[in-house]
Amino acid sequence: MSYKFSYNTRDIKFILKEWLPLEEVLSFDRYKDYYSTDDVDTIVDQVKKVADEVIAPTADDGEEIGARWEDGKVYIPPSFHQAHRFLQDQGWGASNFDLEGEGALPLTMFGLLWEMLSAANPALMPYVGNAGAVSHVIQLYANDLIKEKFLSNLLTGIWGGTMCLTEPSAGSDVGEMGSKAYPTDDPMIYKIKGQKIFITVGDRDDVDNIVHLYLARVEGAAPGTKGLSLFVMPKYWVNEDGSLSDNDVQCIGIEHKMGLKGQATAQLVVGENNNCRGYLIGNPPDENGVGQGIMQMFHMMNEARLDTGRLATAVASNAYWAAKNYGKERIQGKLLTNPKAGRVTINKHEDVKRMYLLNKATTEACRALLAKCYYYEDVREFAPDPERRKWAQLKLDMLTPLCKAYPSDEAWGLIAESLQSYGGYGYCEDYPAANSARDCKIWSIWEGTNFIQSMDLIGRKWMQGKGAIFASTLKEVEDFIAIHKGNLDGLEKEVEHLEKALTTYKGIQMMIAGYARSEKIGLMAVYARRILTATAQLYCGYLLMEQAVIAKKQMAELDPDHYDYNFYLGKVLSARYYLNNAVPNVWHVADLLKIGDTSVLEAPTEIFEY
Amino acid sequence: MSYKFSYNTRDIKFILKEWLPLEEVLSFDRYKDYYSTDDVDTIVDQVKKVADEVIAPTADDGEEIGARWEDGKVYIPPSFHQAHRFLQDQGWGASNFDLEGEGALPLTMFGLLWEMLSAANPALMPYVGNAGAVSHVIQLYANDLIKEKFLSNLLTGIWGGTMCLTEPSAGSDVGEMGSKAYPTDDPMIYKIKGQKIFITVGDRDDVDNIVHLYLARVEGAAPGTKGLSLFVMPKYWVNEDGSLSDNDVQCIGIEHKMGLKGQATAQLVVGENNNCRGYLIGNPPDENGVGQGIMQMFHMMNEARLDTGRLATAVASNAYWAAKNYGKERIQGKLLTNPKAGRVTINKHEDVKRMYLLNKATTEACRALLAKCYYYEDVREFAPDPERRKWAQLKLDMLTPLCKAYPSDEAWGLIAESLQSYGGYGYCEDYPAANSARDCKIWSIWEGTNFIQSMDLIGRKWMQGKGAIFASTLKEVEDFIAIHKGNLDGLEKEVEHLEKALTTYKGIQMMIAGYARSEKIGLMAVYARRILTATAQLYCGYLLMEQAVIAKKQMAELDPDHYDYNFYLGKVLSARYYLNNAVPNVWHVADLLKIGDTSVLEAPTEIFEY
Repeated sequence: MSYKFSYNTRDIKFILKEWLPLEEVLSFDRYKDYYSTDDVDTIVDQVKKVADEVIAPTADDGEEIGARWEDGKVYIPPSFHQAHRFLQDQGWGASNFDLEGEGALPLTMFGLLWEMLSAANPALMPYVGNAGAVSHVIQLYANDLIKEKFLSNLLTGIWGGTMCLTEPSAGSDVGEMGSKAYPTDDPMIYKIKGQKIFITVGDRDDVDNIVHLYLARVEGAAPGTKGLSLFVMPKYWVNEDGSLSDNDVQCIGIEHKMGLKGQATAQLVVGENNNCRGYLIGNPPDENGVGQGIMQMFHMMNEARLDTGRLATAVASNAYWAAKNYGKERIQGKLLTNPKAGRVTINKHEDVKRMYLLNKATTEACRALLAKCYYYEDVREFAPDPERRKWAQLKLDMLTPLCKAYPSDEAWGLIAESLQSYGGYGYCEDYPAANSARDCKIWSIWEGTNFIQSMDLIGRKWMQGKGAIFASTLKEVEDFIAIHKGNLDGLEKEVEHLEKALTTYKGIQMMIAGYARSEKIGLMAVYARRILTATAQLYCGYLLMEQAVIAKKQMAELDPDHYDYNFYLGKVLSARYYLNNAVPNVWHVADLLKIGDTSVLEAPTEIFEY
Repeated sequence: MSYKFSYNTRDIKFILKEWLPLEEVLSFDRYKDYYSTDDVDTIVDQVKKVADEVIAPTADDGEEIGARWEDGKVYIPPSFHQAHRFLQDQGWGASNFDLEGEGALPLTMFGLLWEMLSAANPALMPYVGNAGAVSHVIQLYANDLIKEKFLSNLLTGIWGGTMCLTEPSAGSDVGEMGSKAYPTDDPMIYKIKGQKIFITVGDRDDVDNIVHLYLARVEGAAPGTKGLSLFVMPKYWVNEDGSLSDNDVQCIGIEHKMGLKGQATAQLVVGENNNCRGYLIGNPPDENGVGQGIMQMFHMMNEARLDTGRLATAVASNAYWAAKNYGKERIQGKLLTNPKAGRVTINKHEDVKRMYLLNKATTEACRALLAKCYYYEDVREFAPDPERRKWAQLKLDMLTPLCKAYPSDEAWGLIAESLQSYGGYGYCEDYPAANSARDCKIWSIWEGTNFIQSMDLIGRKWMQGKGAIFASTLKEVEDFIAIHKGNLDGLEKEVEHLEKALTTYKGIQMMIAGYARSEKIGLMAVYARRILTATAQLYCGYLLMEQAVIAKKQMAELDPDHYDYNFYLGKVLSARYYLNNAVPNVWHVADLLKIGDTSVLEAPTEIFEY
């Protein structure tokens, strides 16, 4: 037993009850008869209990038993079967994506609850969540026949779901994929041939069927991503009478991964016997050979990008909390600031506290960023006013690359610091940090590498709507500064840093615009990832300051002995740490960009022999 | 088969033949009859061949078979037995530490060759190297009887060696250890009782005996580290006739580690049957209860600190070279700077080249730093002039914490970038990056955590000799700037950055001096690790610039078609990348320090519940 689920719910409750405008969300037709803000504590506590008692105990099985491939079939740990079934049956799973269902949880809440469940067993969650994501795409884009055939079994988690995108020679290069679809007599049904790799939970033994959303090119359609179409391609074909028969979908193996060992990452070969069929979603390619597949798939991908950031945040947060629990027990060494106190628990050591506060502040920053986006998702989907829905969509567009890349970049360094705080035990698998480090590394890669996210940000999102949309995101930061500058007692310096960061950030945008028009356009790519990080730090700095303003008000009203006082103090200290240590990186990046080093661009590949 | 040894020897040869004053070393009595600079190529090539053909093929066995503990015994992969034997027998092992032996390799060369061997199988090397390190301590501090009993079998690698320091409740807190030594009738022999953990290669099945250097407190000696004594405590007692008998040393288990799985990390219980004996090295504790153990052990520890940095450098370098080999084959995506070229191999992509150049420049920086120290080791040990030996010792004192911490801190991020460059394959254990990532994490922890190194630097080394010694290290940088400022064609900006870094670095020292005298003394600990990194970046920036000066001269004389031209071009680009991207962190750290954020110090431990 090495994994230790160590979550604390207080920040989640704070976000839902004190920071985000949950009342607005709960006023939407979809939710108004079901939930009020008074329910937040009960629901969060209930999911915490589920995470503690049902999900977390399965985590070690993922490591110790793992997913296993044998004779074309994937076997997952028996405890995963039960945990999956429990979440689906008890209403914490795919059913929340039923657009016509009753009592679905608001996405704003669901996102944060899901973070907690993900932390309890990160390898398990795609087995549960993918069915919801697939059913969402089907509800939005598919016709009634498809809905009728597949939806109810997806929404109850009786069947699983996947997103089939990557192929051996088409990773980041989605448009190069070789999977082909051939029309049949039935205009809805195509024969599919191809091979897919890195299919998360692409096969499993705990469900009767798996609904693959499969991206392929209809014979004769245009090259590149624009020629792609999306198909509902079930592992087993669903006959008229509801019975299942073979659909020529083979799982030829799973990957041996660094972590997430309970999560089957499958290689699929489909149509090898010319007998694999799929239902086309939406329309066939138009007269120019342009399909609707990539747009449809992007809906699922954008959700998966938030999910990726959430997984990284969940695992890093849990690693931090597990580490601080260890630090309360472990006695070692004396304090620089108070050597006379003798040997103390390591959680009192200055450098250990630095590691904790770095983790606390950064994971809270990531959680705030993601939670804001869950809220935007709710508004986009369910707000009555179409203008407001559009507004939320644009906000989401801007923040999605940050949500995917920033937490998944930071997790590696954060978990390393949690691990470091254990000393040698951190390197031993009997303690939880090593497992978390191994788990987190994939998230900077999948769902579009963090470089792709960075180029999406600076090459596309910055320009969207002639720059006005991104500017309105920066305007949020500007407005905050305008309100609070000079009057935020004890946080004056932090507001100043935010202002300096905003100013230098605009300078970064100017410099990139300059490079983009010059021979040095390659510098966009060279600095893209650092700029994405700086963007997230600026925006998250603002979010944490917003939270600190609320926390300061609460502190003013509470006695320092009050049980909740230290939570609010912690929020203020998180903001201070982040603004004084992370946000200054924005002007550091500006400084580097100003240097405009071209060594990377000038380097011929031959120098890398050495 | 997943591990891929991918080393290139050119930088090693450059360091030995073109950069370091190897002639000086080869003029020492110990070496002058054996080696000339003309031998460098042959020897390096020979070791490369050994690494390729003998050592690298064993690396996967470390992962797949691993070290195994059963009934009190440790079994290591059979191929490790053979590889160990080969290195010892062929003169690449402990025999080089024989102070009276013939033809030992210069430490300057040995250090770099050992880096290459370490890269070929990092888990294997302590099985080979520890015997040399133990024999070095014995030669320096032990009496003839001990030398006679143990030395020849150590120097031939017939027996193994370890350093027994850590105990369950004494990790960073060495002085708290509970191991006790009790005098016997023989003043040289003590009975020892205690428990040790994290003993690297603490048990194994490929040697007849293991010579543990065991740190314990003689009954009645002073508390803390000063009361410790060092013992030669063999696994099996060596009788008068040379036969071996039980010495009450039990291996009760090995750790299940994140990486380095072929390297047994043992838990030892000694003297449980009151029958474990050890030979005291040097004198018993004096009338104040002060022993000589910690000083003696520090000799081995300082060597182990260089070795740690070397291991990190080796594994990161190898991960980089393996990644660039993959990048030459993998076709994916188009270039931002030349989209018309169509799909290209990823090693041409701007962001991938950035990852490679970051790795290339940083690993070359680490190698330069370490190589400089191998040279100082040679001078300290074997220079004829005692003053020069002392000079080298002081240089080593200053640089040792950098050598240990900087490479082992950087490796985690560097290998993550190598891994990232593979896309999803990087996360699969069939490719080499994941293995390297898992291997490298221990090195920021063992041999004194990187925080301990950082405090050693700013709390001790900065002050040594009233600051004059560290100042003389900075003076090297200053001298370089004085010579080259304004006249280094094409590297003017880089010299300016070095100068700015040096100036701001002195500011960092002033600020820390100010904090140390104030209530904010805790800020020393809070910023220590960042300052160590900045120190290494400043110093390595200077080293890479020194190398670039040489490389530029060579380039001026070579035709761009010359086979060696790209090596020199790469050296210049490494320096440019490093000075424009890494060295600016020095003034970033100065900037952070100036902010002087006290949030960590103010944080009560209670806030970390959230």
